[in-house]
Amino acid sequence: MGQQTIELPIIDDFHTHLRQGAITKLIAKQVSDGGVGLAYVMPNLQPPIKTTEEALEYKKILQSYNPDVEYLMTLYLTPDLTPEEIYKAAEAGIVGVKSYPRGVTTNSDSGVESYTIYYDVFRAMEKVNMVLNIHGEVPSSPDSNICVMNAEIEFLKNLEELHRDFPNLKIVLEHATTKESIKLIKQINSPNVACSITVHHLQLIMDDWAGQCHNFCKPVAKYPTDREALRSVIKEGHPQFFLGSDSAPHPRAKKESVKAPAGVFTTPNILPYLADIFEGFGCLDKLHDFCCVNGRKFYGLPLNLDTRKKVTLVRTPNCIPDEYPYEDENGEKQAVVPYLANKTINWKLQ
Amino acid sequence: MGQQTIELPIIDDFHTHLRQGAITKLIAKQVSDGGVGLAYVMPNLQPPIKTTEEALEYKKILQSYNPDVEYLMTLYLTPDLTPEEIYKAAEAGIVGVKSYPRGVTTNSDSGVESYTIYYDVFRAMEKVNMVLNIHGEVPSSPDSNICVMNAEIEFLKNLEELHRDFPNLKIVLEHATTKESIKLIKQINSPNVACSITVHHLQLIMDDWAGQCHNFCKPVAKYPTDREALRSVIKEGHPQFFLGSDSAPHPRAKKESVKAPAGVFTTPNILPYLADIFEGFGCLDKLHDFCCVNGRKFYGLPLNLDTRKKVTLVRTPNCIPDEYPYEDENGEKQAVVPYLANKTINWKLQ
Repeated sequence: MGQQTIELPIIDDFHTHLRQGAITKLIAKQVSDGGVGLAYVMPNLQPPIKTTEEALEYKKILQSYNPDVEYLMTLYLTPDLTPEEIYKAAEAGIVGVKSYPRGVTTNSDSGVESYTIYYDVFRAMEKVNMVLNIHGEVPSSPDSNICVMNAEIEFLKNLEELHRDFPNLKIVLEHATTKESIKLIKQINSPNVACSITVHHLQLIMDDWAGQCHNFCKPVAKYPTDREALRSVIKEGHPQFFLGSDSAPHPRAKKESVKAPAGVFTTPNILPYLADIFEGFGCLDKLHDFCCVNGRKFYGLPLNLDTRKKVTLVRTPNCIPDEYPYEDENGEKQAVVPYLANKTINWKLQ
Repeated sequence: MGQQTIELPIIDDFHTHLRQGAITKLIAKQVSDGGVGLAYVMPNLQPPIKTTEEALEYKKILQSYNPDVEYLMTLYLTPDLTPEEIYKAAEAGIVGVKSYPRGVTTNSDSGVESYTIYYDVFRAMEKVNMVLNIHGEVPSSPDSNICVMNAEIEFLKNLEELHRDFPNLKIVLEHATTKESIKLIKQINSPNVACSITVHHLQLIMDDWAGQCHNFCKPVAKYPTDREALRSVIKEGHPQFFLGSDSAPHPRAKKESVKAPAGVFTTPNILPYLADIFEGFGCLDKLHDFCCVNGRKFYGLPLNLDTRKKVTLVRTPNCIPDEYPYEDENGEKQAVVPYLANKTINWKLQ
């Protein structure tokens, strides 16, 4: 049966959605429950976080809900973002800028995003060592046969181009889902280009989200061979790949509706899920670097492996709750449904 | 603006699910609402329709709910089916036998269905001119990289084999969704091998069912180029392709849940949908043969084009209802959600 316990430094999640409003109180707390001590926070609130002030304000709220977590803040890339704002943000400790496909609405040529309007901003980011976090999908475009299945693959040429034009800009291809992405990151082979991998993409394929709203996220999980490529690169211990859960809670009522929003919610159980999945494909020994080392090295953060708080995984049946209830802004009862709800996994945090 | 009205003989739907229990009363009525006069009825009830008696009993119920429709009945292919039952069924006017991937649980080799255990039954069917209706997907098998996206393509070699071994057996590849299927049917080029096409696969691509439970069906809608292939073969007026809606109602509460059952519900508006979609890709002139001629010719049924009741499509805004309510067996209020609920299409039946 192998190991019965695993002790790790509290882990790093380099891509998470902590939302805003009533739900954030619940989710921020759950970051710690999942064994996570560092949360790299996405800026896609409504309205999006576009300035240093907004990011710092958001950080303050998160800290008030859960002071045990280190929050790394990001800005949302829009044409409003200026080099001046980048300098200011860097000064204030903001770490990255997140690019979403829908944020790029101008200068796009037949559905392919063009980043050229952002080159001044990227030059500034390069100078102050700020990281560009990319949601790497081009918009769907039926005329060009582009849909959710190949939107990531179609994006990759943009990543290559960007790295060619800004070889010193730190870039993360977020939540990779295809073997083509893995191949490209390995091929680029630069300390400045990395890739985050979620919990759920290591387990799901298309069949798992077809008709199953709680497994539906963007980018969508793809073929078994794509999942295999994600697993393989972790198995080989490649240093440019690390955890970014992309955990994205939505109320159950919204998920189980005519049009489910995209997002898989893993926050409260991230480390137990990962232990279960890593053991499943035979690389529990890679958990430590994938969760505690690779990301920090890429981001140039202190490893603090000795001083970090420790968490202990225990091999024991762990039934994932059906849901986590909370009260929304209107006093209504809501709930978020976790990944693998009502299923039993083999690892639990002590 | 083109034509303002279209008169057609009442149309034929060569693949539909009329269900059982309380919902059937609603659905059987709606067959006529959709402009359909001939319904080719799937046998996948619980338990499945496996004998002549059961099929005739089911037919009687359907006739009691809506006597205006001609019901063509089918049996479910399982290892229980015998040549004797085939002769009996043919005698009783049962037209086809439906093969489902999950029904083939034995003699399957690495996820590929083998039909050899049914060869005695097929020989009998060939003799009495009974039609084999195939759900053409192999079971998903991650080890072979087979999932919902390529399950139909992987199946096609089985269809080729079957036609090679039974050149006189009438076979319909039901609800085709891929360009590869269209290509194969054209290539086989036999009066004995045909293909049904649904309403929704002429309009949906992957993006449309990702997170949208009411658009989720099996086989899943695929790439824009696949949709294009379906449209093209209709546009060229190919005689081996005809309407089989695969309309498959499920209660809203089941659809909008953790795990949505597969099925798009088009019954009450089939002909208006088709007029809207056919006009969209510029082949309203193909509606008549696709809906009233090609299927009957394949099945060897009288065309009755002059004597059939007529229906008239009118170009006018037609807002598809949000849902159709009904009362289930327990007296509970339920509803089924139609395809394109709350959307407005351009054609309506007079």
